[in-house]
Amino acid sequence: MSKVIRIIGIDPGLRRTGWGIVDSIGTSLKFVAAGTVKSDGKADLAMRLCELHDGLWGVLNTYQPMEAAVENTFVNKDATATLKLGQARGIAMLVPARAGLEVAEYAPNKVKKAVIGVGHGDKSQIKLMVNMLLPKATYDSDDAADGLAIAICHAHHRPSIAVNMAARIAAVS
Amino acid sequence: MSKVIRIIGIDPGLRRTGWGIVDSIGTSLKFVAAGTVKSDGKADLAMRLCELHDGLWGVLNTYQPMEAAVENTFVNKDATATLKLGQARGIAMLVPARAGLEVAEYAPNKVKKAVIGVGHGDKSQIKLMVNMLLPKATYDSDDAADGLAIAICHAHHRPSIAVNMAARIAAVS
Repeated sequence: MSKVIRIIGIDPGLRRTGWGIVDSIGTSLKFVAAGTVKSDGKADLAMRLCELHDGLWGVLNTYQPMEAAVENTFVNKDATATLKLGQARGIAMLVPARAGLEVAEYAPNKVKKAVIGVGHGDKSQIKLMVNMLLPKATYDSDDAADGLAIAICHAHHRPSIAVNMAARIAAVS
Repeated sequence: MSKVIRIIGIDPGLRRTGWGIVDSIGTSLKFVAAGTVKSDGKADLAMRLCELHDGLWGVLNTYQPMEAAVENTFVNKDATATLKLGQARGIAMLVPARAGLEVAEYAPNKVKKAVIGVGHGDKSQIKLMVNMLLPKATYDSDDAADGLAIAICHAHHRPSIAVNMAARIAAVS
């Protein structure tokens, strides 16, 4: 029997951080849960970051994933938006790392390639493929669907991570 | 006898996050401590954010400040640098907020104005004035001196925060 690897994928955002959890069992994938952690747009920035932290911490405690993946966010031209996203992303990386999980990072085009087969595509195509790959998936936002896509991407790439690590260990020993 | 308000000022950065703590007693200021939390440039981003988190958490536990202030970082034109800074800044805001502190934000020119009297000036001028205002201050980096400057800025502005809050409360009641 193949080992079950539970993976959380996180799509960070200050207003809405999407998350999705899948079980990777050999070559098959199983939907576990997905959702959205929201922060109150009227609250202070520090308070909003606390809301994201506590929400994600709760998800990790409930579902106990073993590995985490976060989207390596697209850097746009609006510096204020980039700074905000960076702050939310800092929390999205910190929470699983503090829980002792390895945190992988994937560029958006890598996530798209893993899910829809090409490095570009819109949100509806991602949702279509998430629903195909995880027929039992339910999610409450586009961000939660993105969280699942990131988890799927990690499930596809993690064997090569293991191979790379084995090669690295062999090289130094 | 005036009440002692212990303030931590934080200058966030992924490589080096500077911090400085002062006691504000009536109109006088007293140096408490200052230092630098560093992250290992060779480690993964998630691990580096953990290092910043744990370092700042330790400082808060040791010195038990009552209020926090973080520099509202200058947004430069390099989006990758802005994203990195945002991630570090997310941690710098989160840690005091999770400890139950109010976290104020100040623009760099406001910090400079509070310390050197004008909204512009270089690092040597800031250090000169930090040393004048806090004769017993010792610090191990420019970032730690900036942390002290941010704490001084908050000490100067916090009475007006209280006045503003009183006005706001009066306006809604």
